[in-house]
Amino acid sequence: MSGPGIDIVKAGHIELLVSDLGRAKEFYVDTLGFVVTESSSERLYLRGLEDRQHHSLVLSRSDEPGVGHIAFRVADEGDLPAIRKLLESRGCKVKPVSKGEERGQGNALLCEDPFGFPVEFYASMDKVDWMLQRYDRYRGAKVMRLDHFNIMLPNVAEAFDWYVHALGFRSTEETETEGPTPSLWAAWLRRKPTCHDIALTTGKGPRVHHAGFTVPDRVSVMDCADLLASAGYLKSMERGPGRHGVSNAFFLYLRDEDGNRIELYTGDYLSADPDWIPIKWKLNDPQRQTFWGAPTPASWFNEAMLVRSPTTGKFAKLVAPDIQDRPDYLLSAK
Amino acid sequence: MSGPGIDIVKAGHIELLVSDLGRAKEFYVDTLGFVVTESSSERLYLRGLEDRQHHSLVLSRSDEPGVGHIAFRVADEGDLPAIRKLLESRGCKVKPVSKGEERGQGNALLCEDPFGFPVEFYASMDKVDWMLQRYDRYRGAKVMRLDHFNIMLPNVAEAFDWYVHALGFRSTEETETEGPTPSLWAAWLRRKPTCHDIALTTGKGPRVHHAGFTVPDRVSVMDCADLLASAGYLKSMERGPGRHGVSNAFFLYLRDEDGNRIELYTGDYLSADPDWIPIKWKLNDPQRQTFWGAPTPASWFNEAMLVRSPTTGKFAKLVAPDIQDRPDYLLSAK
Amino acid sequence: MSGPGIDIVKAGHIELLVSDLGRAKEFYVDTLGFVVTESSSERLYLRGLEDRQHHSLVLSRSDEPGVGHIAFRVADEGDLPAIRKLLESRGCKVKPVSKGEERGQGNALLCEDPFGFPVEFYASMDKVDWMLQRYDRYRGAKVMRLDHFNIMLPNVAEAFDWYVHALGFRSTEETETEGPTPSLWAAWLRRKPTCHDIALTTGKGPRVHHAGFTVPDRVSVMDCADLLASAGYLKSMERGPGRHGVSNAFFLYLRDEDGNRIELYTGDYLSADPDWIPIKWKLNDPQRQTFWGAPTPASWFNEAMLVRSPTTGKFAKLVAPDIQDRPDYLLSAK
Amino acid sequence: MSGPGIDIVKAGHIELLVSDLGRAKEFYVDTLGFVVTESSSERLYLRGLEDRQHHSLVLSRSDEPGVGHIAFRVADEGDLPAIRKLLESRGCKVKPVSKGEERGQGNALLCEDPFGFPVEFYASMDKVDWMLQRYDRYRGAKVMRLDHFNIMLPNVAEAFDWYVHALGFRSTEETETEGPTPSLWAAWLRRKPTCHDIALTTGKGPRVHHAGFTVPDRVSVMDCADLLASAGYLKSMERGPGRHGVSNAFFLYLRDEDGNRIELYTGDYLSADPDWIPIKWKLNDPQRQTFWGAPTPASWFNEAMLVRSPTTGKFAKLVAPDIQDRPDYLLSAK
Repeated sequence: MSGPGIDIVKAGHIELLVSDLGRAKEFYVDTLGFVVTESSSERLYLRGLEDRQHHSLVLSRSDEPGVGHIAFRVADEGDLPAIRKLLESRGCKVKPVSKGEERGQGNALLCEDPFGFPVEFYASMDKVDWMLQRYDRYRGAKVMRLDHFNIMLPNVAEAFDWYVHALGFRSTEETETEGPTPSLWAAWLRRKPTCHDIALTTGKGPRVHHAGFTVPDRVSVMDCADLLASAGYLKSMERGPGRHGVSNAFFLYLRDEDGNRIELYTGDYLSADPDWIPIKWKLNDPQRQTFWGAPTPASWFNEAMLVRSPTTGKFAKLVAPDIQDRPDYLLSAK
Repeated sequence: MSGPGIDIVKAGHIELLVSDLGRAKEFYVDTLGFVVTESSSERLYLRGLEDRQHHSLVLSRSDEPGVGHIAFRVADEGDLPAIRKLLESRGCKVKPVSKGEERGQGNALLCEDPFGFPVEFYASMDKVDWMLQRYDRYRGAKVMRLDHFNIMLPNVAEAFDWYVHALGFRSTEETETEGPTPSLWAAWLRRKPTCHDIALTTGKGPRVHHAGFTVPDRVSVMDCADLLASAGYLKSMERGPGRHGVSNAFFLYLRDEDGNRIELYTGDYLSADPDWIPIKWKLNDPQRQTFWGAPTPASWFNEAMLVRSPTTGKFAKLVAPDIQDRPDYLLSAK
Repeated sequence: MSGPGIDIVKAGHIELLVSDLGRAKEFYVDTLGFVVTESSSERLYLRGLEDRQHHSLVLSRSDEPGVGHIAFRVADEGDLPAIRKLLESRGCKVKPVSKGEERGQGNALLCEDPFGFPVEFYASMDKVDWMLQRYDRYRGAKVMRLDHFNIMLPNVAEAFDWYVHALGFRSTEETETEGPTPSLWAAWLRRKPTCHDIALTTGKGPRVHHAGFTVPDRVSVMDCADLLASAGYLKSMERGPGRHGVSNAFFLYLRDEDGNRIELYTGDYLSADPDWIPIKWKLNDPQRQTFWGAPTPASWFNEAMLVRSPTTGKFAKLVAPDIQDRPDYLLSAK
Repeated sequence: MSGPGIDIVKAGHIELLVSDLGRAKEFYVDTLGFVVTESSSERLYLRGLEDRQHHSLVLSRSDEPGVGHIAFRVADEGDLPAIRKLLESRGCKVKPVSKGEERGQGNALLCEDPFGFPVEFYASMDKVDWMLQRYDRYRGAKVMRLDHFNIMLPNVAEAFDWYVHALGFRSTEETETEGPTPSLWAAWLRRKPTCHDIALTTGKGPRVHHAGFTVPDRVSVMDCADLLASAGYLKSMERGPGRHGVSNAFFLYLRDEDGNRIELYTGDYLSADPDWIPIKWKLNDPQRQTFWGAPTPASWFNEAMLVRSPTTGKFAKLVAPDIQDRPDYLLSAK
């Protein structure tokens, strides 16, 4: 059960580290169609067509690619003290972020969570023009909004406990390893009533596997694949288009030119029922990853984004999981 | 602020009254593709492809068409006493419904609300097979789930107060009349973070204008129009396909052979931000009803479903609004 | 049977007269996404994304809007003398057009046909870059190519005889008036094996009702409607989106700011069978115009583009048909 | 140039050999939605929703899978003698087929062509109900019609000469091997003005690689993939969905349970221009096979359908090509 005063609303935004802001702008803005809210020599604050908030994607210049932080929006600024207390009770370093320190954002907390991830909690953000009915501004992938984060770490069961029992997330779908004593291999956890706001997956970690952005429909995904192929971004398309078994979403995984990974995502479902029973998958089910049975490239399991500590500025060291980090049919793929 | 113990989750189901169950099954099941969960000589319990609950649409045999009740799902059975107390404090007749009395449903409350609408509150419902990934069972309109109710009544401002201040709904979009002292003409209110669970619109009432069911995408709407035109349901298509200004959804309004109205609905947005400011429209804005400016047929304003009292079994008498019940450009349409 | 040496290949291009080239460019190029091949102070030569020829749409500055000419591509320049002979045998004025006189085009013939329409026949045109796989250049309606012309004239039966027996077209679909002695009311005639290259419809004439341009699919039509509504072109959408009964195509009719009319068109069929029997419709069939039964606006029957004589430069005088010019259900619409 | 009296109209139909008609019916009719025109204990005559002809796909019971024959429709029965003469001048065995011998078909010629393929030429076929506007009958992949054949043989240049110079086909796209003295590796040849009626590709032959059937749009392909995955046909999906570089079509390759291969195909272009210059590709271009750069499974290059001689009833022996039979990046794939 979530503690009193901890009411997380949704996955809010992510900060990606890119080596060349101009090149990143060509990819995210000129090609994929993210909307620029604000920019500086060091950062681009971007949003989707559906966003009424200042940003859901921040691109920050950095010599090393990776993730600066992920952020959850909470219902009220009054939630922040309880979150701080909870984090500190777990020994996490917490760094208050003042209103405006991150452009457009109110007071917030930035921490290194119990698993080494840089996580921010914020309650308010400047309002901006809604582009949803500015169809004359739609471009590229028609990115609507941030939907979820997918993170990799060696011990999913521990993170599950943290997100569900401490932070009040609910489990929508789960993957278990095979055999008589299955381990929890992955979980899709939600605050907003969709499939998820965050997915936890087994792998060397702490790393962020991807951020998933919502697009309107399958045709938008297909159009984006054609566009990327025409615009010289052939290598950016890592996996898909395809249909996930888990989440039922239609997807395309993209790598920017620094290797950061995002997902174009559409077509999951409403999970509002209070008695929702998590949907269970087995790790080796061939339809779990891609409902059509298509193979997943090895890079999708091997590679993920490093995370930078908000306190030290260093990238977190990786720890390997004790259990296998991919389905049997990919065990030999490196 | 919602009272303690009143946590409405979503629009849950609707009971439509039909004169011929066999004919209604041909329309809703064989043509539109609703899934049959259970049936009797007097009722059909139907659900969408995404539903994991027993039913979201009940068709009940009746000599007169109309609406038996609309129902909201609440988070916990423990919410029911507080709701009962609230209703009774407003002088509403409340009728407890025992587990199983409505098939598949747990304990519930059925009432005549302060505006004469038959409204049910329930917390639990039997689980059933999820058809979401049974694409071999997809038919017709590919109806996913119930999304919202749209009700008509003479005084929207009073109902707004009830839904927002007593029941804890939040306002997503609003329409006002023109002029220097505008009146609230319609409001789209939500509990789940989409555009709405219930819309309140000005008109003779109490009547239910329609129930909106979610379909996967615009192509599903278009496919359904072709199908209905081929299958002899030309007259069932009252309005659309088109894009709404309000809600941004893509729609097609259908009338069953008793004249009951449902909407196929797709493509609204996430409204999870805690500081959401309602989007405002003026009644005469030509893009409010249909974003492309196409005219709305007069029947869409004139006709709606009568509601049957859960206590007397009689249909509610209608009261006309004091303010105009349609945009200026339709004032002469009868 | 077509005479020797008359082998028409397809509807090739159309010249529309516009009062303001800059404003027309905003509509056709910036909004709808036609590709500019070449321009001068007096003309814009435009093509679709699929065209490998210099132009399929010419916009010419003119004080009066309307149609400068429609043009058919023939298989070989050697066909031109036989066409000239045929035209002159019918008393038509023929004006040879030298290579390059119309930019990008080889030698051609421009005539006033037996019904007063300005018609050009040409065999060759400069090749240009194919944009079909330049998805990064797709914009607006994603116009692929010209598909057909639709012309209005008082006596369809006579024009049918000319197109079928003199020029070698074949009839794909036909509409007849009601009653015991039906008249041919409209015909869809082809050279390329689709539904049509030219449609003949009953009405005051000679006028050109519209030019139909192919778009990839229904979603492109829908996207274009959203775009036009956002970009301030609400009044440009005259009819649709919808599904035609005749041709089975999905359509949206647009008027430019001079009132010239084009159709976005997708989804007809292959008509290659040598023994094709024309599909017959009755004028009053409600599904003939729109398969979904939606009403057609009166302007669609009343208004069409005037045609300018290639010899006198004057616009042709109109003659009314002897038979009714619209379905019964629209007889009173003015 | 085509000889006098040889006017091939289109790829007309294909006969596939299947070991179990009941199982084949489950796949082609119940799942993919082909329409049954006629059936016997030995054969199923199927057509697409757009077909007005008796059949475009024949399934014949056979102990060995493969292809019974491919068939081209010619413009007139009077074309058959010239075709017979041409074939016999090349030493081909020709077998006249009387009206009705193949159900629904008029007089025809069945031959073993110069490369060992069983090819039929027919001019007429019984008319049947058009299902194009029977949207209530649309199922599965919404197969519209046959579009093309793709055949594999060791010497494409020789077959190119036969199809282009003897039979009057025109070349739309071509693939060449790399290096200073490129060989013709594949060609897409047309009679109807689309990308192709037949493709010639280098490989062990004579074999038929696939028959391509037209579906309405990309969404139909995607829907079919979901359907097949739900209906237990996971292994039937060999390659795709994806976008071809060559032809620009959107595709999904399917294997029936005997291993016969068909393609769901949509979105090529009009190639009516009389001066069409073939589009050229290099064998190793990664976008040639799949515009998005996705790898092609080795089975797609290795496997194809054996062809049965119409005269001996034996399957043709295979001859390997002298030049490489796949792109460099797949050379090691077996």
